[in-house]
Amino acid sequence: MTLSPFDSALLGPLFADAEIAAYFTDDAVIASMVLFEAALASAQARAGIIPPDAAKRIGDICRDFVPDPASLAAATASTGVPVPGLVKALKAEMGGDDARYVHFGATSQDVVDTALVLRMRDVVAVIRRRLRRVIKSLMGVALDHRQTVMAGRTRSQQAVPTTFGLKAAGWLLPLVRLDHQLVAASQQFLRLSFGGASGTLASLGGDAASVEHYLADELGLGITEMPWHSQRDVVVELASKLTMLTGALGKMGQDLVLLAQSEIAEVTPAGGGGSSTMPHKSNPISAEMLVTLARFSATQMSHLYHSQIHEHERSGTAWLLEWLSLPEIVMASGKALAVAVEMVPSLRVNDGKMRENMDVSHGAMLAEAATFALASHIARDDADRIVKQAIAQSQQNHSNMFDELPTLTDAAVDWEHVRNPANYIGMSNHYIDRVIGAAQRDLSES
Amino acid sequence: MTLSPFDSALLGPLFADAEIAAYFTDDAVIASMVLFEAALASAQARAGIIPPDAAKRIGDICRDFVPDPASLAAATASTGVPVPGLVKALKAEMGGDDARYVHFGATSQDVVDTALVLRMRDVVAVIRRRLRRVIKSLMGVALDHRQTVMAGRTRSQQAVPTTFGLKAAGWLLPLVRLDHQLVAASQQFLRLSFGGASGTLASLGGDAASVEHYLADELGLGITEMPWHSQRDVVVELASKLTMLTGALGKMGQDLVLLAQSEIAEVTPAGGGGSSTMPHKSNPISAEMLVTLARFSATQMSHLYHSQIHEHERSGTAWLLEWLSLPEIVMASGKALAVAVEMVPSLRVNDGKMRENMDVSHGAMLAEAATFALASHIARDDADRIVKQAIAQSQQNHSNMFDELPTLTDAAVDWEHVRNPANYIGMSNHYIDRVIGAAQRDLSES
Amino acid sequence: MTLSPFDSALLGPLFADAEIAAYFTDDAVIASMVLFEAALASAQARAGIIPPDAAKRIGDICRDFVPDPASLAAATASTGVPVPGLVKALKAEMGGDDARYVHFGATSQDVVDTALVLRMRDVVAVIRRRLRRVIKSLMGVALDHRQTVMAGRTRSQQAVPTTFGLKAAGWLLPLVRLDHQLVAASQQFLRLSFGGASGTLASLGGDAASVEHYLADELGLGITEMPWHSQRDVVVELASKLTMLTGALGKMGQDLVLLAQSEIAEVTPAGGGGSSTMPHKSNPISAEMLVTLARFSATQMSHLYHSQIHEHERSGTAWLLEWLSLPEIVMASGKALAVAVEMVPSLRVNDGKMRENMDVSHGAMLAEAATFALASHIARDDADRIVKQAIAQSQQNHSNMFDELPTLTDAAVDWEHVRNPANYIGMSNHYIDRVIGAAQRDLSES
Amino acid sequence: MTLSPFDSALLGPLFADAEIAAYFTDDAVIASMVLFEAALASAQARAGIIPPDAAKRIGDICRDFVPDPASLAAATASTGVPVPGLVKALKAEMGGDDARYVHFGATSQDVVDTALVLRMRDVVAVIRRRLRRVIKSLMGVALDHRQTVMAGRTRSQQAVPTTFGLKAAGWLLPLVRLDHQLVAASQQFLRLSFGGASGTLASLGGDAASVEHYLADELGLGITEMPWHSQRDVVVELASKLTMLTGALGKMGQDLVLLAQSEIAEVTPAGGGGSSTMPHKSNPISAEMLVTLARFSATQMSHLYHSQIHEHERSGTAWLLEWLSLPEIVMASGKALAVAVEMVPSLRVNDGKMRENMDVSHGAMLAEAATFALASHIARDDADRIVKQAIAQSQQNHSNMFDELPTLTDAAVDWEHVRNPANYIGMSNHYIDRVIGAAQRDLSES
Repeated sequence: MTLSPFDSALLGPLFADAEIAAYFTDDAVIASMVLFEAALASAQARAGIIPPDAAKRIGDICRDFVPDPASLAAATASTGVPVPGLVKALKAEMGGDDARYVHFGATSQDVVDTALVLRMRDVVAVIRRRLRRVIKSLMGVALDHRQTVMAGRTRSQQAVPTTFGLKAAGWLLPLVRLDHQLVAASQQFLRLSFGGASGTLASLGGDAASVEHYLADELGLGITEMPWHSQRDVVVELASKLTMLTGALGKMGQDLVLLAQSEIAEVTPAGGGGSSTMPHKSNPISAEMLVTLARFSATQMSHLYHSQIHEHERSGTAWLLEWLSLPEIVMASGKALAVAVEMVPSLRVNDGKMRENMDVSHGAMLAEAATFALASHIARDDADRIVKQAIAQSQQNHSNMFDELPTLTDAAVDWEHVRNPANYIGMSNHYIDRVIGAAQRDLSES
Repeated sequence: MTLSPFDSALLGPLFADAEIAAYFTDDAVIASMVLFEAALASAQARAGIIPPDAAKRIGDICRDFVPDPASLAAATASTGVPVPGLVKALKAEMGGDDARYVHFGATSQDVVDTALVLRMRDVVAVIRRRLRRVIKSLMGVALDHRQTVMAGRTRSQQAVPTTFGLKAAGWLLPLVRLDHQLVAASQQFLRLSFGGASGTLASLGGDAASVEHYLADELGLGITEMPWHSQRDVVVELASKLTMLTGALGKMGQDLVLLAQSEIAEVTPAGGGGSSTMPHKSNPISAEMLVTLARFSATQMSHLYHSQIHEHERSGTAWLLEWLSLPEIVMASGKALAVAVEMVPSLRVNDGKMRENMDVSHGAMLAEAATFALASHIARDDADRIVKQAIAQSQQNHSNMFDELPTLTDAAVDWEHVRNPANYIGMSNHYIDRVIGAAQRDLSES
Repeated sequence: MTLSPFDSALLGPLFADAEIAAYFTDDAVIASMVLFEAALASAQARAGIIPPDAAKRIGDICRDFVPDPASLAAATASTGVPVPGLVKALKAEMGGDDARYVHFGATSQDVVDTALVLRMRDVVAVIRRRLRRVIKSLMGVALDHRQTVMAGRTRSQQAVPTTFGLKAAGWLLPLVRLDHQLVAASQQFLRLSFGGASGTLASLGGDAASVEHYLADELGLGITEMPWHSQRDVVVELASKLTMLTGALGKMGQDLVLLAQSEIAEVTPAGGGGSSTMPHKSNPISAEMLVTLARFSATQMSHLYHSQIHEHERSGTAWLLEWLSLPEIVMASGKALAVAVEMVPSLRVNDGKMRENMDVSHGAMLAEAATFALASHIARDDADRIVKQAIAQSQQNHSNMFDELPTLTDAAVDWEHVRNPANYIGMSNHYIDRVIGAAQRDLSES
Repeated sequence: MTLSPFDSALLGPLFADAEIAAYFTDDAVIASMVLFEAALASAQARAGIIPPDAAKRIGDICRDFVPDPASLAAATASTGVPVPGLVKALKAEMGGDDARYVHFGATSQDVVDTALVLRMRDVVAVIRRRLRRVIKSLMGVALDHRQTVMAGRTRSQQAVPTTFGLKAAGWLLPLVRLDHQLVAASQQFLRLSFGGASGTLASLGGDAASVEHYLADELGLGITEMPWHSQRDVVVELASKLTMLTGALGKMGQDLVLLAQSEIAEVTPAGGGGSSTMPHKSNPISAEMLVTLARFSATQMSHLYHSQIHEHERSGTAWLLEWLSLPEIVMASGKALAVAVEMVPSLRVNDGKMRENMDVSHGAMLAEAATFALASHIARDDADRIVKQAIAQSQQNHSNMFDELPTLTDAAVDWEHVRNPANYIGMSNHYIDRVIGAAQRDLSES
């Protein structure tokens, strides 16, 4: 619990994720901004507007430049962006006349936005690597549990049977869709931001297009039709994909918290947190964390939609709102995936408890099955009525509905078959096959 | 101001949009649910599991069935969904034994979700039609105002010149991207929802796949790998695109509100609202409405991310959260587009005022241009210093910076050329061409 | 499912609340605005700035004035507020020279805001009446169930025993606090809005203070130090109280959804929704609705905080954002209370199931009790160790922890006493007494 | 730009606030938790349930205990809370049999929540100290600028005159209200959290009430009727007050951003951020920051309303959502106040520019004044018509409305008086006096 629990040493691995966090440290931000300045000089040399020697020296200096973030802080406070301080420090390193070629014709937002893009390129790679591990794990769970029958539950009540395999397939499918969409969203986002003072690159005169071309090439980024200083839909789109990812994992986490309840105990996330005075507890900490991160991001995402309302050529307010919200959205998705990577392979599935829990309705969970079975012999309305009466009698007699049914009808139904929930899982395996197929296509394509 | 201003007769055309609203009336909801029931019967007849005659009768009855919404309300309250009451009423219309074939094997969520999809198919068509009209209008504005020079503004301050054409291109580009993305998001959304009681279609036994196939065919919808009862990313994705659309228009609205300020008066949305005691006012009501709708949707969108956390096979809470939020998000985007359709072609651009406003800095807005021009003759640091001094002198002498510069340097700069903002618009026209190209590709593709 | 489910006839009593809705119809809005105009005329007559006869005629006309909302709609669209159209219609009714005394010196926002205040005065009364009924019901539940022992649950796991009475007291206490706070928030909100064109009342010259005084008197409202056109904290504060109320009921709803799960079945909200093919289900629709409304309002509330950022003397954007969000927040709290009023008295508490569920841990839920009991005889560390071993043995032997403990220690613990959860409810009844006391003070005070 | 800009050294004083941040460091969190443990031991000694010697030793150890946060991190990850690791470390320090008296009968949430309360007590004091400095500064501004006439602006358009003093009073009044409310909200929040495993304090047997009493006394905190583990309205209420505070300052910031626009330039926040290539710019960084923080908190606040939906006796998900959101809300309000403390006294008010800007309407901004003045001589409708015609003529003739009016009417209006905006500021000074009075009462009361 520092200002952001994500940064807390005390809360440690509960919230933190060192691999993602590394891209959001001051040092990483500075390094990515310096990378921009080096590439800009190189591009401008290729375009013939600054001397190759100057560009080379800028590149050399940038390679070794590791300023103390705090030394740039005063300039940040007075200018509202970390770039002028950095540029000043780089120029001081350069010294001499050639210092003027540092940051030539660029604006602070070019640097900050492109630096973000460069880091997000790596972050998205980390996230997709994790995502694909979760996808593979869930494919395994879905296949392993094709026949693990359990209660399907709607509106918190047992409805009709399903399988744990189908449940896992339901967690899996949105991840497959989102992996695909994440590729598109990140390709759209991985573009150079380069527009100069107010988005016309006028400072570069007739060489602007050429510098833009070489700079994108140096950084391995695409370009947009015009600088995206004040068109932030590309940021929103990427953040939305990450938030939906966190949300999809939150749904899995919510199901697992419910399945892990003491009285239900059908699936237990490994590594549950204990309590010194309550050794019987196994708190589903990882699953809870998935829900927390999903709810957190669900609200956090609003910030980014608001930041689309970006005044004129650059909004101090909307842009800083992004700074305050995007990193946490990224981290939440990265952390949720890290939790899932560990959790999914270690789920302990208690199929005995699943079968036992289906008995709480004394057969009534299969009322639909019984009604449909009966309705193939007698009128549907009669079937409805008889099944309802069987349920009433079973409650009165503390018996099972299926023990009452033969007393109410002599229709030639194979009640032993019908009372077995494993015989009422419908299209489950067909659906699992289709989801697995989609997952395989996704994994092989990208 | 009824509960939702969107429904208020008093607030009338300020908020309301009859064309979109028509898809969210009780009658429209019922009609689309009835359509599902008719198609289901037809599909089941094709699959051979209900008699063709029964299917035909169900179809006939559905065609003419217009119940009073209020007559279904009591059943909605006791069951929590509008479907059981509707099915009961349809069965009553049918009468006889064949009534059992109504809604055979389906669950309420199948009906409600598919009915939503059917209406959204039409709504998306309306929205895209409007969107493309706005795209075309903005293409015209961007082209017409290639040479309409105005102040570029960053952080609320005049920065360097830009053109109104480029500003319009900046409003246009996200719309082009979103039109493209909207197609993908709606194709993904326009899928049959059909899973039965808890998503296995067990009620249809071995014929389930066949019924699913025919039902999708009857309704002209795609299918998903498994029923999407509890995987709501497809809803979120579509809503996100609509919210981004509203946000992109909100950015345009915000710019216009700022440009319409009494003291700036560069662009005036037509039809500004007046005041009886203040006849000089021309309130930019349409532009304000775009901002309001964008901020509204930006927050509203959170609801949908939260609704992804959908417990088990069906969540009463998460699903109803969608009911409370999706329609307003759809309406906000539809209304914002309707406002923009009217507003964009009627914008009154005052280029004289644009030029006049650029004078408030007494030339200093072109300090960058002057510095770069001077720096091609003397050292950059010297150029910086001289321009700063010229600004200081111009403030002291109440003169223009460009009248001071020749007193400070005899460098052979063509100051008459430099002081004309039209000569410092950089890549503006090149960018406009690229944006127009993207818009043309979008319009011709789909 | 119209645009707002709150207005849908089809969804009927599931969402709708006719008593609250009545204050947000167009007719009600118009009536309250007309009330303002009549009171204004009367106040201005008392202040001597319009003729008493004119004021009397305005009052007479206002009494009978029921315009068709749609007839005012065109004026709303062109001016952005419903007031100019209304004033024009009132003036037309008046005819003649005295028509000029209608709406004399007021601005549209004065009318719209004060009209909202007048209606909210009645709405708050309805809400508080409902709230106090829920408070009384929950007092009964807390007292009735002082000895109804059940599992306390933390992080979804059984922890140590509690009582259903204490659980009810936990639902009750925030309602008591909020009833108290609601009085203060509404007193602060029930103030006249009256500032004229830009908040100086300059239009009324030297009589402004006197008109303000009489107008507040006519309407029975307080005044603020200066017009609150653009200081919206008073709106936010009232809405926050209502949202917290909805949230407090949402916590109760969430607990009840969890307690109603098929496998837990400790408390069942009456009137659960059924399913035709699944007669065994009893969906906790009311409890779910409380959760939905709470999550809805939790997000919705953001709109109002954003609306505090109100540009200059009147913001078209921020003000309309209020129009789009406040009514639904009010309705959500009113509806949540209406649901609770019905639900709380009808809760079916199954204390047998509560006791049975506590057995799932085979005594381990009382591990803390056993440890503390043992630790009064032997060292705490030894006690810890022995209890853990007893749990391990009970899992191995499928026995109860309390059957294993005597085999592991001969400490003179009265295990029969300790194994009874009713003997480990600590301060429960003391807490209940304190909460009931606070509730009684609240009920008697106001 | 680390994960939270509030923690970034690079962004430095732009976002950071060392004084508030100090209360949210890991060390501060640990110190406050240790304070709880020491007080608990002391209270339990006073209640006679642990030996005074043991309590004294615990106190001594706690005084000097400064663990490395990272050393506790592993335990946090496995248990989901930082307390068990801390307790284990404290026990290790104690050694021997008395170690068992550390954290005796308490639960982790007791420690974490009370530790938060203890730190918030100091944080609220810091915040109120800053708030009162801003209140005093704004009182000065309001009084100094009673006669500084400027355009009142509604819906982004000049409406009728107001004064900068009244504008400042409008920024001030909500702060005064909130200072008052903050006292109440923090008094309600500054309560001991102490309920043991599931909120019954059963672990302390018959001594529980006594320990609760002494512990509250040791820490100088109040108590609640029952432990507030799962009733979070008290957290929401405090956070809401802080968010409203940030919102009230955001409104001031928004007005200042608008007033600082290059073309308007009526008020300039000192210390505006410049640009190396655009020396004429003075970006209103502080004012923008107020808007950003207000929008950020407006959305962030939703998290806390959601966290009210707290499952059963303790929710892992809802509680952690608080951890992720509350600190940033607190920091945003603290930072916004710090910005305002610096900014308000340094505002540069350009009354010349204010007068000049009122001329853009060529007198029409005083149309209401002219109409009312004229209407005291002729019929209101005639007055309306004449003023409208004067405006039309002035636009045609590029003249001032007041130069046209005498050509249209010979009514004996003192046009020289009417055309002076200083004569049309209505109740401004009266309102300022009332606001100042309220502020003085607030400052003297608390």
